[in-house]
Formats: sequence, C-alpha cells, structure tokens
Amino acid sequence: MSLAVFSDKRVDNLKIAYIGGGSRGWAWGLMSDLAQAPDLSGSVDLYDIDFEAAQHNEIIGNKYNDLEGTVGKWTYTAKKTIGEALTDADFVVISILPGTFDEMESDVHWPEKYGIYQPVGDSTGPGGIVRALRTIPMFQEFARAIREYCPDAWVINYTNPMTLCVRTLYKEFPGIKAFGCCHEVFGTQNLLKNILKELRGIDATRDEIKTNVVGVNHFTWITKATYRKTDLFPLYREYIEKRKKSETTSNYTDDNWVNNAWTSDNSVKFDLFERYGYMAAAGDRHLAEFCEGSWYLDNPKDVVVKWHFGLTPVSWRKEDLQKRLASSAELVGGKKDVTLRATGEEGVHMMRALLGLTDMVTNVNIPNAGQIPNLPMDAVVETNARFTADTVTPVLAGPIPMPIYNLINRICAEQEMVIEGAFERDLEKVYRAFANDPLVRLPLDQSRKMFNEMVENTKAYLGDYFKK
Amino acid sequence: MSLAVFSDKRVDNLKIAYIGGGSRGWAWGLMSDLAQAPDLSGSVDLYDIDFEAAQHNEIIGNKYNDLEGTVGKWTYTAKKTIGEALTDADFVVISILPGTFDEMESDVHWPEKYGIYQPVGDSTGPGGIVRALRTIPMFQEFARAIREYCPDAWVINYTNPMTLCVRTLYKEFPGIKAFGCCHEVFGTQNLLKNILKELRGIDATRDEIKTNVVGVNHFTWITKATYRKTDLFPLYREYIEKRKKSETTSNYTDDNWVNNAWTSDNSVKFDLFERYGYMAAAGDRHLAEFCEGSWYLDNPKDVVVKWHFGLTPVSWRKEDLQKRLASSAELVGGKKDVTLRATGEEGVHMMRALLGLTDMVTNVNIPNAGQIPNLPMDAVVETNARFTADTVTPVLAGPIPMPIYNLINRICAEQEMVIEGAFERDLEKVYRAFANDPLVRLPLDQSRKMFNEMVENTKAYLGDYFKK
Amino acid sequence: MSLAVFSDKRVDNLKIAYIGGGSRGWAWGLMSDLAQAPDLSGSVDLYDIDFEAAQHNEIIGNKYNDLEGTVGKWTYTAKKTIGEALTDADFVVISILPGTFDEMESDVHWPEKYGIYQPVGDSTGPGGIVRALRTIPMFQEFARAIREYCPDAWVINYTNPMTLCVRTLYKEFPGIKAFGCCHEVFGTQNLLKNILKELRGIDATRDEIKTNVVGVNHFTWITKATYRKTDLFPLYREYIEKRKKSETTSNYTDDNWVNNAWTSDNSVKFDLFERYGYMAAAGDRHLAEFCEGSWYLDNPKDVVVKWHFGLTPVSWRKEDLQKRLASSAELVGGKKDVTLRATGEEGVHMMRALLGLTDMVTNVNIPNAGQIPNLPMDAVVETNARFTADTVTPVLAGPIPMPIYNLINRICAEQEMVIEGAFERDLEKVYRAFANDPLVRLPLDQSRKMFNEMVENTKAYLGDYFKK
Amino acid sequence: MSLAVFSDKRVDNLKIAYIGGGSRGWAWGLMSDLAQAPDLSGSVDLYDIDFEAAQHNEIIGNKYNDLEGTVGKWTYTAKKTIGEALTDADFVVISILPGTFDEMESDVHWPEKYGIYQPVGDSTGPGGIVRALRTIPMFQEFARAIREYCPDAWVINYTNPMTLCVRTLYKEFPGIKAFGCCHEVFGTQNLLKNILKELRGIDATRDEIKTNVVGVNHFTWITKATYRKTDLFPLYREYIEKRKKSETTSNYTDDNWVNNAWTSDNSVKFDLFERYGYMAAAGDRHLAEFCEGSWYLDNPKDVVVKWHFGLTPVSWRKEDLQKRLASSAELVGGKKDVTLRATGEEGVHMMRALLGLTDMVTNVNIPNAGQIPNLPMDAVVETNARFTADTVTPVLAGPIPMPIYNLINRICAEQEMVIEGAFERDLEKVYRAFANDPLVRLPLDQSRKMFNEMVENTKAYLGDYFKK
Repeated sequence: MSLAVFSDKRVDNLKIAYIGGGSRGWAWGLMSDLAQAPDLSGSVDLYDIDFEAAQHNEIIGNKYNDLEGTVGKWTYTAKKTIGEALTDADFVVISILPGTFDEMESDVHWPEKYGIYQPVGDSTGPGGIVRALRTIPMFQEFARAIREYCPDAWVINYTNPMTLCVRTLYKEFPGIKAFGCCHEVFGTQNLLKNILKELRGIDATRDEIKTNVVGVNHFTWITKATYRKTDLFPLYREYIEKRKKSETTSNYTDDNWVNNAWTSDNSVKFDLFERYGYMAAAGDRHLAEFCEGSWYLDNPKDVVVKWHFGLTPVSWRKEDLQKRLASSAELVGGKKDVTLRATGEEGVHMMRALLGLTDMVTNVNIPNAGQIPNLPMDAVVETNARFTADTVTPVLAGPIPMPIYNLINRICAEQEMVIEGAFERDLEKVYRAFANDPLVRLPLDQSRKMFNEMVENTKAYLGDYFKK
Repeated sequence: MSLAVFSDKRVDNLKIAYIGGGSRGWAWGLMSDLAQAPDLSGSVDLYDIDFEAAQHNEIIGNKYNDLEGTVGKWTYTAKKTIGEALTDADFVVISILPGTFDEMESDVHWPEKYGIYQPVGDSTGPGGIVRALRTIPMFQEFARAIREYCPDAWVINYTNPMTLCVRTLYKEFPGIKAFGCCHEVFGTQNLLKNILKELRGIDATRDEIKTNVVGVNHFTWITKATYRKTDLFPLYREYIEKRKKSETTSNYTDDNWVNNAWTSDNSVKFDLFERYGYMAAAGDRHLAEFCEGSWYLDNPKDVVVKWHFGLTPVSWRKEDLQKRLASSAELVGGKKDVTLRATGEEGVHMMRALLGLTDMVTNVNIPNAGQIPNLPMDAVVETNARFTADTVTPVLAGPIPMPIYNLINRICAEQEMVIEGAFERDLEKVYRAFANDPLVRLPLDQSRKMFNEMVENTKAYLGDYFKK
Repeated sequence: MSLAVFSDKRVDNLKIAYIGGGSRGWAWGLMSDLAQAPDLSGSVDLYDIDFEAAQHNEIIGNKYNDLEGTVGKWTYTAKKTIGEALTDADFVVISILPGTFDEMESDVHWPEKYGIYQPVGDSTGPGGIVRALRTIPMFQEFARAIREYCPDAWVINYTNPMTLCVRTLYKEFPGIKAFGCCHEVFGTQNLLKNILKELRGIDATRDEIKTNVVGVNHFTWITKATYRKTDLFPLYREYIEKRKKSETTSNYTDDNWVNNAWTSDNSVKFDLFERYGYMAAAGDRHLAEFCEGSWYLDNPKDVVVKWHFGLTPVSWRKEDLQKRLASSAELVGGKKDVTLRATGEEGVHMMRALLGLTDMVTNVNIPNAGQIPNLPMDAVVETNARFTADTVTPVLAGPIPMPIYNLINRICAEQEMVIEGAFERDLEKVYRAFANDPLVRLPLDQSRKMFNEMVENTKAYLGDYFKK
Repeated sequence: MSLAVFSDKRVDNLKIAYIGGGSRGWAWGLMSDLAQAPDLSGSVDLYDIDFEAAQHNEIIGNKYNDLEGTVGKWTYTAKKTIGEALTDADFVVISILPGTFDEMESDVHWPEKYGIYQPVGDSTGPGGIVRALRTIPMFQEFARAIREYCPDAWVINYTNPMTLCVRTLYKEFPGIKAFGCCHEVFGTQNLLKNILKELRGIDATRDEIKTNVVGVNHFTWITKATYRKTDLFPLYREYIEKRKKSETTSNYTDDNWVNNAWTSDNSVKFDLFERYGYMAAAGDRHLAEFCEGSWYLDNPKDVVVKWHFGLTPVSWRKEDLQKRLASSAELVGGKKDVTLRATGEEGVHMMRALLGLTDMVTNVNIPNAGQIPNLPMDAVVETNARFTADTVTPVLAGPIPMPIYNLINRICAEQEMVIEGAFERDLEKVYRAFANDPLVRLPLDQSRKMFNEMVENTKAYLGDYFKK
C-alpha cells in the first residue's frame, strides 16, 4: 500500500523499488534524475541477485543527497529479497542483465559461424530470441512478486528485449500497470531538429518536434512529423537528396567494423525512407537487425563501407563493464565523487505525471488495445501515450501504412510466437519463430542446429524451464 | 495559404475567419480570449448572413486593442462574402444560429402538443433532428467553401447540433481539419473538484481532475476519473450517498419549471451513476434529452419537483438576444466599454497548441477512427485528444462499457441515420431516426404527423433541398 | 464417449439425450422426424424434472418403431438423473419450460397493469427478461452437466429466451458445441414463396428462397433475398403496394384480441419494410415485442384493429397444455395411435449434417465471432451457418445495415446486460436492462416497482440465486 | 441484360463470355463440363487477342453437341471484340496467358542468375510479381469492359496470379461480381482421403473430407479437417510419423530436377505441418515459393534430393503448348474427335449454384470482408464460401492462427503493395514489395538490378503504363 504523502504541488515519502542495477549504468542515471526532481522525495529499495552490487549502489545513491544542486532527497537501501524491495512500492524500475555477458557473447557472436551478423543482438534476431528464453522466466517471477507485494505500483521496464519483457509482465499478471521506456525515438527527433537547423536555420528543441510513432521497440517508425505548422517529411527528403550530392557522407578511414562499435551516420534510416516513404526511428544498428538480413547485414565489411554503422562486439561490453565496476569501487571508496548530470531520460518525468504533478505525452511500450488497429491485439507495441494521474492512455496512432506494414507486422507476429512458445515451455514453438526471423535466412537443418547450439550455450539460465 | 509569421515562441499575422457571431455571445468571448493571448496576433475576418451584425462585431472587436491588459492585437474586419473571410485563413471558427429563434421555438415547443418536453432541444430529440435538417445544408456549403478557399485551415465548430455539424463537414470534405468544442465536460470536472474539496478538504484545479471521456456531444460519459493517485469514483459514490441522507438537496420553492430555466442540481447525473456505475458528463438538461423520455421528462412538473432541472423556453432566448443586441448597440455607440474576462473556453489555447506553441489534451468532437472501437466508424464522437503542432490525435478512449453502451450507441446510430437521410435529401430516412428517438415514444401515425408539422414549420430554411 | 457406429452412408447406435419434453409438443415432433430418418438409428434418453412425464414419453416414443413408414429405429428410455441421460450422448436436445405457466402468466400479463402488452412474452420485454432470470441458472447447470458427462456432444436448444439460453451455455462452458434452432425465418421464406406465386405465377419451394439473415432470435432481418436470379426485394415492395390498394387486407370482424391469439396478417412486417427497407423475418407477434412499445403495442385494441395480430394469453397455453396431457394419456393408454407427420423442423437434418452424411446451410443462433461485425462479439446472434461433419461455421452475414442497426443492436446490448447481471447474480444490473427495454417506457419508480413485483412472482424458481 | 430462360429445374439461353482460351487447355475442359450439365444450355462467345485461336475453339466447341453423352447444348461463336463477347453475358470466364511463354521464361528463369529458383513462378516471388505487372493493366481493361457491357454478370477467373487478378477486378470496378477458382485445395483433400483409406481402411470421397480453408491462393492452409466425426489432424500426424519410419518415401533415382517437372511427394507439406501444426493445402511446388527461400529452394539439387518436388521449366510449357496446338489442329481438321471427360473442376457446378439450381460450399478467392479478420480488409483471400442464387457469401473462416499468421500475412501484405504500386503506375512501389519477397533474399543493389532486368524483359507488355 502506498505510503506517499501528497501535498500542494509535491509528493513525499514515495517508495521506488529498483530491480537490477548491478551493471550500474542505468541506476546511476536514475539517481541523478531523482536528485534533481524538485517536487519528489522518498526511498529507493535496491534488489539485485548480486547483493553486493546492490549494497554498492546503496552507498553511491545516498551520496547524492549531499551534493550541491540536489533538491530531491532519497534514502537508498539494499534489500536481500525481492519481496522486501517491492513492499509498499509506488514505482518499480526493472533494469537487469538477463544472464551474463558470456551468454550475450553467444547470442551475438555464435550466429557469425553461420554468416549472420548482429550489431546489437538483444532485441530481435537469433540473439534477441535466445536472450528472451532466459529473460521471460525471470519476468514471470517479477510479475508474480509484483502481484503479491505491490499490485497497484507502476512498473517501468528498461530491460531488453523490451517488447517481450513487457509482454511477459502483462501475460503473467494482466492487471499489472507496466510500461517500457526507450529513448531511441528521441534520437530521430534530434536528427529532425538538426535538419531543421541545417536547412532552415531554425533553432528548435527536441520537445518541439512532434511525431506520431508506430511499431515495436527498436523498430519504431514515424508516420507524421511536424514542427509548428511545418511538415518535416519534405524537409527530410530534401536533406537526404542534399547529402547524396555532397562528396563525403562520413569520414570512415577504417573499414574494420570492430573499431566502430557504436557509430552510424543514418544511412540505413535514409535508405528506408527513400524506399518506403516513412521515417524509421531508432539507431541504424537496431533498425538493421529487424530487416531482411541481406539488406544491411549481408557481410560485416559492407556494414562499414556501405552502410556506415558499427557492430558492437560483446568484448567491448565486457571491458566497459569492468570500467564501470572500477568506477563503482572508486565511488564507494570515496576516491571519486558522484555528480549530477542531464541523462535525457524521461523516467522521473513519467513518475511525476503518474503522480498527477504534470501531464506528458511520450512514446512508450504497452499492449496493443487498438492504438495500432492492424497489429495483433495484446502484442506490445510502441506509440505515443498520455501520462497523467495514475493513468497511461495510448493515443490512437492509427494503422501501420501498407508500405511498412509487412516489415513491422512480421516482427510483431514473430514476438507473439516466441511468447507463446515460452509460456508453453515449448522450445519447438520458439524455433518456429527463430527459423523465420529476417536475419536467420538459413536452410532448416542449419537453423535448427544453430538454435540448438545457442540454447545449449545459455542452458545455465534455463534450468529445466523448458520441456524436453 | 497561411501568411502567419513564426518567430521564437510566438506567431504573428495569423488570420482567423469567423463565420456567424450575429448573436454576439460567442464572438465577444473569443475576442476577449484573443486579446489575452500573449503570443498571438493577426486579423479576424467576420462573416455573417446579417452583414450589419458583422460590422457591429468589427467595431466592438477593434475596441479590445485599446484595453489595458490586452496583450494580443487583432484587426477585425467584416466581410461581405464567405470567400473573402476564408481566404488565407489559418483558423475558421463557426458559431451560427441555424435559422431564427422562431424556428427554434417550433423545434423545442411544438412537441409539447404531443406531451414531449425538451429542456434544450438543439442537439437531439425531435428538436435536435429538425434543427439538423436546416443546419446540414448550411454546413455542406461551409465545407465546400473551406475546400475552395482555405483547405489547410483548422476549423473549430461551436454550433449545435455539434455532432451533426462536424459530421457534415467531414462527409462533405473528407480532407477537412475540423473539430467541435464543447465545455460541458468541464462542468463535471468542476463538480468533481468541488466534491474533492467538500469530502476531503483538498483544493484542486479543474485541470488536475483527469478524466477519460467517451460518448457523443452532450451525452458524454466519464469512465475513469483521477486526482493524483485518488480514484474519484468511490468519492463520487460517497458524495451521492451523503447527499441522499441530507434533508434538502435543493431549495426549489417553486414548481413552475419555466422559472428555473437553467438550473439543475445534478439529480439526473447522480441517478445515472447509481444505475449504471459511470459518470454522465454534461448538464442534466442535456443528459435528460438523450435518455428514454419516461425517465426524466415524463411531464414538466416532475422535472422540477423530482429531478430539479429546468426546461429553457425559447422565449427566454429571445429576450436574452434582445438584451445582447441592446448591449451590442451600447458597445458600438460607445455607451458601454468592452471588458476582458475569463471565459473558461479552450478555443484559443487549442489554436496555440495547433501552432506548436504548447501541447494540450482535452475533449473534442471528431470522427471515430477507432478511439471508441465499439461505436460506428466515422460517426462523430467525443473523447480526449492530443492537440499539438498542426495535429489532433484522439487518445484511445476504449470501448464503451456494456452497461452504458446501449444508451450511447443508440444515439450514435440515430445520428448516422439522420446524416444519411439528409445527405440523400430523403426526409423519409430522417423520419426513420425521428420515430425511434428516445423522446418521441409516439404511435407511428402521431410521430409522422408531428414530424411533418415540424418540417413544415422550418420550411423557410429548407427550400427545395429535400426531395418530395 | 460416442459409441456411434459409422458405416457407408449411415450411422447407428447414436445416443440422443433429451432434456425436458414434459410439455410433450416438441418431443413428439422429434420422435416423428427421427422415425423418418432413413440413415440413423440409436437410443434417446429422456430426462425431465417430472419423471413421470419422461416415462410417458418413453412409452410413446417406443411406439413409433411399430408404425408403417418408420425407417429409423430408436429406443426411448426415461432416466432419473441428468447424468445418466447425458452419458455418451452424441446430441443433447434441450426443450424445457422454465417454471410453470403460472410464472409465465406473471411474465406476460403482470405488465398489463402498467399498460404494457406482450403478444408472446418469452423472448424479450419485461416478460422475456424475467423468464431469463429463472432460465439462466438452469442452463448454467445444464452446461456444467454437459461439460462433465458429454463435453463433445452437440447441443441443440429449442428453449426460449433462445438468445440467453445459448449465451448461458457458452458463457458457462466456453468449449461447448451448442446452437439454437428456430423456425421463425422459415415463415418469411414461405411468405416470399407465396408472393412469388401470386405476383409471378412461379412455383418455388421454401428451400429455393435464398436469404441472408442477420439479427437476434425472433428479431431476425433479411438483408438479401433471391430466387434464382430474381431479387425478391422489389417483388416484396410490389406486393405491399398492391395489398394496400386492395380493399380488405384481412377479415377480422372481432376486435377482441383475446380471440385472435395466434393470427397475424404481416402488417407489422410490411410496415417495418416500408420504413426501413429491410425484411423483418419473424412472426409479427414476435417482431412487435422488440420495437418501441408505442409502435405496435400501444394499446391492445390497436393490435387487432390496426396491426392485425393477436396477443396470446397464457390461459390459452394452459388449456392447450391440458389438451396435450390428455392426448398423452390416450397415447400411453393406447386409446390413440402415434402418427408420422412432417414437422417442418430441421433438427434431425442438422444432426445428419453434423454426422457428415450431408451438408446444409440454415439459420442458427450461436455466439458472434464476427459473422455480424458491428454487433458485440460473443453475444448470441442469428445468421446462416454451414453445418457439416462435426462443424458449424457461420457465414459472414456482414454488418447490420445502418437503417436497422439501432433496432437490433439495442436488443443485443440489452441481452448482454441481462446475462452480465445474471452471471454476477446482481438483480440491480438486470434492472438496468429492464428499465431501458423498448416496451417498458415507464418512469423509473414505476419500472422499478413492476420489476420487483415480477421478480417476486417468480421467486419460487430463483431461490437464493441472486444477491440481496 | 440477361436473356436466360428459367423453367422448372433448368435454365436455357444462357450466355457465357469466354476471354482467353488461346492456349486451349482450360477452354476444352469447360466445353466438356458444359456438355455434361443436364440442366443448362445456351451460347458461349469466345474472345481472344488471337482471333484465329478463338475461331478454332468455336469449331471445336460446336463439335461437342454431336457427341454421345452430351446433354447440354451450347453454341460457340468467336467474336472480334471483347464488347461483343460480353454483351448480355450471364457469366464471364477469364483464362488468359498474360504475355507469352517468352516473358514467362524470364519470370521463372532469369532469377536463377541470382541463385533464385522457382518451381512455378506465376503466383508470387520475383516471377509472380513481374507477371502481375503485365497482368494488372489487362485486368483493369477487362473490369472496365465488364462494367460497360455486362455489369451484372458473374465473373470467374482462372488466370494467375489469381489473387492479384481478382484484386484488380474489384479495385477497378468495386461493384463487380467476381471470384477466382483454383483446384489446389482439392489435392490436399484427396491426400486426406487417401490417408483415411491407408490408415483406417475407410473409403471416402473428396467431397466428404470437410475442411476450413484460410490463406491466399496457392498458399492456403487448412485449420480444421473432419470426416464425419473424425478429426483428421491426428490422422495426418500419424501418417507423417509412419512415413518417416518407412525406408523410402519416394523412388527418385535421378537428381536432375529438370526431369521431375511436376512431381512431388508432399515432403514440403509434411515439414510445414510438423513445424507449424496446420496443413498447408496446395502442391509443394507452390508452397515452397511462398516460404523463406532458404527453406525449400536454397539450391536446385536439394529440391529433388531432399524435398522431392520438381521445378517446372518454361521450356516444358512451350513444348506442351505445341502439343496442344497440334491437337487443336487435329480437332479442327477432324483428324481427332473431341471427347467428354471428368475434369474435376467446379466451375460449371458453381454456375448452377449461382443460377439457384443447387447450393454448394467450396473454396474461392474473393476480397476479405472479414472472413479472415486478421488479414487486411479488401485483400483477396481464399476461404470457403456459400454459392447460392445470385450470391457468393464467404463463411467466417476465422483469424489465421498465430503460428502461421506471419507466413500468410506477409504474403498478403506484399500483394497489397504490388497492387498499390501497379494502380499508381509506380514501379518504385512495386520494387518495395519485390525486395522484401521471401524468395528474393538479395542485397539491395542486386535485387534492384534483377528487378530492372526483369521489367526490361517484359517491356513489350508494359508499354508506357508505368511512369518513368
């Protein structure tokens, strides 16, 4: 039961349960955002399967209260059980790594033996599907715990595969109040902002770029974009034409994709626009994974030479984690100080809206109740939604336009097959989806072999969940 | 073509076309609201079939520029043709009286000969249907003129019957960007605000009362209402129970309904809530007209004694018009000064949102594209919508709950029949709807006789529009 | 488990469970039809709450085997429990009288105190709703018993209120294979056949009159009717025009409606066609009950004088039952002989189709899975369906045309409210539907009083089913 | 206007317009079926762009009247214009070859340069799409001619690509009464019949195998199959298991696929069943083309060795045509006699049903009006439909089950993109569909190159239809 205290224009004694956070990145961003929220205060209970990680975050979190510039005071406490963390929570934030980067290494790189390359490998494709196999059982447990300990709390998920995580929460506990947040659309809004500046000399903020969003997470599309009375579609087209005429669209001097792990110059986005007439609204690394494998991921050399985006190796993630752990040790030991920063995330703003302190409309991942009438009902989709007092209401984003319908519906139906297979604990049904994934493109015997191997590689996290 | 000039945080040189306004009330409110908008300026072209009325409004409108407190400067000009008024318009405001109060007198009072009483008589029931017969041809003309002179303008309608006016605009010119505004829902939000104060001692603003709205204009219902984390439904029920226990729920000492033309103590609203579990969200005088005639309008005596609302006689409206015309003469002649006031209307705020200066979510009347999945597509419905740069997007209000589905869908289908009949210029098809209206309840020979008489009474405005 | 034996072109050892039949009429018709089915044989187990009635039917049923002309041999056995009757059944036939004619007397005639007249009173209106209150709990029991004893059997219901009986079966046991049969549509097909003969001199059979049926039981409508390449709609219109010109449309010399209990000359049907353009397809006595009460049932005198149909008094039914019981006694005692006759019912033909011996398309009552896209899903609707081997598939009857949408959807939604209230055992929710029924038309205090009285009159059959 | 003469149980003076037929095969089959219809007679007007071919068919057709066994007399006449052929037609049969086998050679074999193999190449895949480019303009002309000369006639299409031909007819002339016939589903019904015999020793006819069909032409699926009370799904599974255990599933001793142009042992069908749980219901050669290219068409060697079906070379079709032309010459010259045969086609039976002589339910290609609720509305789909007097009504086949939804919806959406591109005369939009076809699987530069080449190869039949 919520113990929050509402007074004029502010809410105190809130309780947030944070599940995960052992990898630190997201947790610290949230801490910084909370410290800067002027009208909220309360406590954050931390739960991670690595209790020591939660304890470190407790120490780090509490340091924010002493910073100059901190206006929101929060008490951080590591909890040994998920039940303790969830009890009386107003909000639950879930940001976990399902398994370790060793499992992710198989997800991302094992398919390379079969000629399949994945720039991210956590949302879709063979990597995303196998990651889902170990994530879905975890989220089923989370959903059951939330039903038991805080059924009325709002649950904000940041974990990938986003769509299947949120779908699992609702399928396991239909009364849950959950949504998934992702900032990928913001990147395209920023791109439009920059184009507006470059072509028209107009300074706008990202907030002023208004978009209608349809699709599924990391494969979102914009079907309408306006700045004041300006339709941004012709502008986007003009920009693409102009760029094609310029001599260099990027200065990649190195065609070794490993060195360009996170970069992209939007070539995929622009190619999709030219061919389909709608704006794909996620990073090129993500977009490429949802398309026919032969288009942008036919071989790793092309990726850099032709499409100008990088494939992120898991080794990079492993190193990066070590840096964050080192950073964590320094923060805990007092060798380094915590700092306030602008994260660009909207999570805390959403909380404020759900508490009735403000209104907002932003893109979010929730089950399809008709906001996209031509995608399957109940599948998790990403559209704009209105956040207001204790309520998230999707806007009617409208049907997916026919030119891009096939691209998106195919993914949506694939995800529905994965969830069905996982809930029935039937790997054979999951393989159905896997074999038909746009990246897989393998003869059936090979795709089955690859699937079996990848499942084997992740078995430590499956236990006996799936039927033999 | 819009000649508006956008600069940082403001828009100048806007053009608004105002159609109607001869009855003055609405026009002056808009003038006052525009004068107080700090980030807009431009011109308002006035068109009315009574050119002198438009000229008077021109004189009055221009006086606002000299008032202390006026921050938005606007030039008002009466135009002799609708084409001149519409050319280059960014916004078109339509607020007309279809016919005269003599026609309205028949609409409202003729059915009394048959035992049918109407508190308003302009939206539904026999009066609303016959009013629609003369309104629809006018709105067809407006739609054609807008298509010709300013197809990209936003059209804001305030005329009743709201639903059929907006429906006509879209049916005649499917590409139109039109919506209908009505403040009736605000009244229920204010009621909830007052209940919150009375029962919990909490001061909230109307804006903080968040509601999900479904239905058709003047027969809107709230399916969810929250203030911060508080569900307002149990509170509403508590209030109704409390009121029933109090000795007097109103102090009507006079049972002559004519003397209580505009009053109501929400007894209808509360009865509907007790019986159906959802909040009807319009004034009782409107709500009563959409329900089975035997419920709240069985005889005029009951209306006051039992349900505590008034029936507004058209004689009152005629007198009131005379007062406004006198007031107009005084304003034109300089005997009285124009003043700034808070109208509580959202029209100018909506314009600002459509220009991209702000965002807002409010209730609005637009065609059903799925925002209420279990009402007929294309019928005009009232739900919340997001207003943002050059865009109105309905939120997914969801299906009408089964208990109130019948009440609302019946009206929605009736309106669709009227529009079909009117567009086919076939009075027989309109009579189909008329005979089955919840207020009519007459044997067929009588309802046909009444229909024919009422059509005859309004024939001056039908010309030869309808087939014999 | 079915023990049926399939051989080339025939099925033997079938088992039919017959629930009800105490009032004899239907049971004997089925016996006669079974005796004449050349490719079926087996046993019929009879269950009735009046065991003696079942025993009498056992004796009578077995007599059919000795008739000349009998080609299908069936063994009839009265069973003491419903479980015995249902075990191993291939088909279950339900034809019961819910309560006695004393309860029905209240259903039909009590509302007359309030000026409400019902020609039948078993399907809709105040009588139909109160009848449903005692029927739904019975059908919930039947559904549970079928789930337990013969979940794979096909269940054929003949009991009224048809829609709510079938709806109850599916709502209680979603996996049930049930449908409701009614011959009312046949009457309109016969009327079309006769018109074809009268106007064009063409001899057709009822089977050759092809119709598209939409609606709910007893308020079904035909949206397309053809004989060979002939569209029957213009013909129907021609016939109506001709009839209006003829001097006498009927020869009712007596305006005492009690004397005309079952008659009708289709005046209601023709009036509906003239006003709406579609053919209502049930007897006028039924149709009138689903329409606004002021149209055809404003007062009992009009019924005969103007609309030419009779109101069936329950006293007639009581007398008729006595005749059938006397007849039963004669048959049992051997004073009278059973005879084969043509019933015009399709039940046995449907069984043959479901066994794969033939195919047929006919109208049937089943849950809406989209066959009528603009009625609520899952509500029981009547359309054509294909009957074939172990399968009933509705044809896509299409959306209800707008002119008659309101009439039908209103009834469909009312029935959904009744079922919701009854399953929640909440009389208040049932009253919601009752108060808004087209026949009720009463001020709220009166309709509540009447509802309470009618519920009281039927209380012997409600027990403590409903919450206080 | 129809000149048909209806008498008891028969129709005479019918007029059929036959468009195409120059390749002879289909035309002769229809002639034979008509000659054997005991209750029909009339005239067949033949129109072909090769007038001499039509004249030869005239001669051949008229010979049927003299055969022993002929019961239906028909007068065949070659017509020089399509208008003459269509005037007064009751039925229009369209069976054309769009272009010549030279164009088809490019459709089918050109993609082999890119490693893409097509066993048929006329319905989907690169071959089907390019074939559609020249077919759609022809069908637009047919639709316009039918609207002009015989708007009330029933139009039966046999031409491929079936889906896009029928879609074109309706999109060009929405009031058309057209459907597409295909016998592929019959093959699977025969397979089920044979399995029933092999496993259970039961002799059934194809008609007794009852199926629920969903999908698009040549990629139809059976979601329910029954024989009497027997569910055929477990039987199908049993058969597949048994076959896998048997030593040889086929005796292909030759792995040169060219030699096995038309054969198949259902290995594709069985693999799809094992993986998806539903029965694909077309020949393996067709099914393979609609699936991911890597599954069954990765390389031509696999096709025979592993999946046991043949790829039909167009050279075979050319030779076969020569044989038919030679045969035609012999028939015309009287060297060979026409003969009556059982074609297994249902066209004439459908005509009889549409004339009201009988009823039938069979699978047919018509626009989706909700018979498959989760495919796009208006797309042409294949389901069962009821054929009766002047009416085709689809049965409610129901939503595509999720496991196969992706496979089918992808194709359906691709076809909608092709039709949209073709009607807008925009090759770029057609290329969108082409690039994403399951068989294409090429990098974008290659798929574009191949598309351009294939369009070039067919340019003789495109003229200036498409915009540059």
